Amino acid sequence: MIKHTVRLLLFACIATPVFAQSPDASAIRQIFDTELSQGKSYAALEYLTTRIGARLSGSPGAAAGVEWSRHEMENFADSVWLQPVMVPHWIRGQQEQARVLNSKRQGTIEMNVCALGMSVGTGPEGVTGQVVEVRSFEELKQLGEKRIKGKIVFFNRPMDVKQINTFAAYGGAVEQRALGPSEAAKYGAVGVIVRSMGINQEDYPHTGSLRYALNIPKIPAIAISTRHAALLSTLLQTEKDLQFYFETHCETLPDAPSFNVIGEIKGSQYPNEIIVVGGHLDSWDLAQGAHDDGTGCVQSMEVMRLMKMIGYKPKRTIRAVMFMNEENGLRGGLEYARQAALKQEKHIAAIESDDGGFTPRGFTMNAQEGPKARIKSWKPLFAPYGLTDFEEEGAGADIGPLEPQGVTTLGFLPDSQRYFDYHHTREDTFDKVSKRELELGAAAMTALVYLIDQHGLN
Amino acid sequence: MIKHTVRLLLFACIATPVFAQSPDASAIRQIFDTELSQGKSYAALEYLTTRIGARLSGSPGAAAGVEWSRHEMENFADSVWLQPVMVPHWIRGQQEQARVLNSKRQGTIEMNVCALGMSVGTGPEGVTGQVVEVRSFEELKQLGEKRIKGKIVFFNRPMDVKQINTFAAYGGAVEQRALGPSEAAKYGAVGVIVRSMGINQEDYPHTGSLRYALNIPKIPAIAISTRHAALLSTLLQTEKDLQFYFETHCETLPDAPSFNVIGEIKGSQYPNEIIVVGGHLDSWDLAQGAHDDGTGCVQSMEVMRLMKMIGYKPKRTIRAVMFMNEENGLRGGLEYARQAALKQEKHIAAIESDDGGFTPRGFTMNAQEGPKARIKSWKPLFAPYGLTDFEEEGAGADIGPLEPQGVTTLGFLPDSQRYFDYHHTREDTFDKVSKRELELGAAAMTALVYLIDQHGLN
Repeated sequence: MIKHTVRLLLFACIATPVFAQSPDASAIRQIFDTELSQGKSYAALEYLTTRIGARLSGSPGAAAGVEWSRHEMENFADSVWLQPVMVPHWIRGQQEQARVLNSKRQGTIEMNVCALGMSVGTGPEGVTGQVVEVRSFEELKQLGEKRIKGKIVFFNRPMDVKQINTFAAYGGAVEQRALGPSEAAKYGAVGVIVRSMGINQEDYPHTGSLRYALNIPKIPAIAISTRHAALLSTLLQTEKDLQFYFETHCETLPDAPSFNVIGEIKGSQYPNEIIVVGGHLDSWDLAQGAHDDGTGCVQSMEVMRLMKMIGYKPKRTIRAVMFMNEENGLRGGLEYARQAALKQEKHIAAIESDDGGFTPRGFTMNAQEGPKARIKSWKPLFAPYGLTDFEEEGAGADIGPLEPQGVTTLGFLPDSQRYFDYHHTREDTFDKVSKRELELGAAAMTALVYLIDQHGLN
Repeated sequence: MIKHTVRLLLFACIATPVFAQSPDASAIRQIFDTELSQGKSYAALEYLTTRIGARLSGSPGAAAGVEWSRHEMENFADSVWLQPVMVPHWIRGQQEQARVLNSKRQGTIEMNVCALGMSVGTGPEGVTGQVVEVRSFEELKQLGEKRIKGKIVFFNRPMDVKQINTFAAYGGAVEQRALGPSEAAKYGAVGVIVRSMGINQEDYPHTGSLRYALNIPKIPAIAISTRHAALLSTLLQTEKDLQFYFETHCETLPDAPSFNVIGEIKGSQYPNEIIVVGGHLDSWDLAQGAHDDGTGCVQSMEVMRLMKMIGYKPKRTIRAVMFMNEENGLRGGLEYARQAALKQEKHIAAIESDDGGFTPRGFTMNAQEGPKARIKSWKPLFAPYGLTDFEEEGAGADIGPLEPQGVTTLGFLPDSQRYFDYHHTREDTFDKVSKRELELGAAAMTALVYLIDQHGLN
């Protein structure tokens, strides 16, 4: 309302100081100004998510994503190339089915589920069994083979809503999805239901990879929506002999050829020193891979595009890498690091954006004391843009394999509150991304790359 | 993906320290834990926005909002009362129409518009005129009566996308809406079109109040969607004689009786010292008033509810005030302050939430040095919850009238990036609010009230 105006005009004055700025502060101002007024990251994301869509490794969408990102980066990179990598090729097949068969009070109840990524399928005969609910691997162990054999294990430990950082809540629950199927199979389970890695009450399931252990039978596994997880748990309190049926048609085909897509601007002074910025091009198959990780891809591309737009010629070599296969294999990240070692490339820093395209809060890092102190000394340059958190450890899955080579790795850190509303679900679509939030992240990443390029890390 | 797990578990440890906490830190932890796991703010917001909906002053929706909030607060307040206040009663009437009549290239072009709040209507005959586009009052003045008389003035200065805080961008443009109609009428304009106070390219217009100056003819005014503002501006570059027609049926009825709704928990030690927390119950008529300001209302109520839930008995008197008529008159805020002065009530602090229900970033304040230093000394207690910004001036429109009484006023400061996607439009609906973001704000406000209650401000 009108009464606000005075305060608002005051804000405007604070936000645009008229006094002279340092060269770094001016460059960063120009980066943000350019992105917010002429940035192309949102338009790029629209193309990637709404015209190409889902991009699971080995799928036609992933191939289209590779071609598109190559063409896109040719608009502003000195050179663009494809780095071949063989990837797992898992397909979901026809729609999953799941139901409670014999509730005394409600009869047959259809359940919202999806197969977990990399799961074996049940085939048309499905799996039927009594359901045993557990909240931990310890509980599973105590029940043992006697109580588990021939049954379906239901992992139902919720994400902890009390964690302020939702990734912490995810970290406290995701072992159920990743390792639960093999843990249950150890005791003779015939199938696994995992409560979706969602933090709210939702009607849709969250997929995501499981990881089968060696030498343990591979049993089929599904995720169930949080709402139906709650319903199933409630039913089980009074109906211990509940029979559950599910049918999945997923399968793993032979590995398929794919690529990391790499764009590069050659450094003018230290061309052998490489700064990588990246996201992963592959996404789960249920939606458009908008926040996971279309936003990280277009933000990484935008770093190079913005440098071009403002006429900045980097001293060091800047690479944007669209990693393939983060979701179910990490083959792209592993291959990129392997090639870097083979070619004895000197990477001085790698930055990944894979926590969604939300308002930036800062950067996480895995770094030695020297580089860490250097990066933290730049905090005042980021504060005007709302980035204040430089304290957490961590970087990104795709750039993790570079760490043994002594590379300083960083993760773009956006606000985490909405990420798990969309993560690995049908809801991860373009319309969930705010143009400004996306752009602020792209500009923040560009500013960080600019500072590392200008000043190095040693 | 799975590789994240190590980092995530690390986060979990950081987020939940096992070492002993100060009593304040423990209380605040309990406040956040309780809200995030058992909070009622989201359910309250769902009722207010989806069952009651739009609540413009004098409307049936506003009356329903008064009744609902009285009932709701009776669940946890010691007492609840209605404070009578007469409010302006403006109604939109039937759907607005607007079109370009004679584009050489495109013929008749329908335009997305809405009447500005408090505007006079054109009636069924509408207004027709040539369009003169300006970007400032200065430009308008230079054109003068000779070029303006009998025409429709089109104020088309955009919000500055380069402002990081979107309220600053709003502050730099909103005078066009608030004061533009009378400025144009000074020179004989017959109508006004204002570019919507939206930051993106959008298809829908933003309403909001104008303020007619005394002794200047009241001319009808509309807001046009940002996309159609751009189209109109483009057309005007080559077609100077463009004729524009618009028709509005809004009118201002006699003032109507309404109420502020006040809930109170009496202080156990200093009952005469009052801490107010509030939002405004009224909203524009185009949607559900979710972020503006349903979220502020339910967060303010939640402060009292949370105190009850955790068994906290405040030393001072806590009041949640649902102010009426912030949008088009501020009568509720003015009356609340008038009554406070009349009754010689001692308000030690007032906190308003009216910048949307997004992730909390901090608090703004209008305070003397002593209280300001006290509040800033609490920053470490808020940092674990992501609130780090305590630097800006400002508080809230409804509590502004308390400031001459020496009351320390504060504003809840959420992330501002998405606010103007919804503000005063059909898009300001319940589904745009994130449950967790809303709850974090409610808990942050409760924590601040708790600290003021515990330690005072002097």
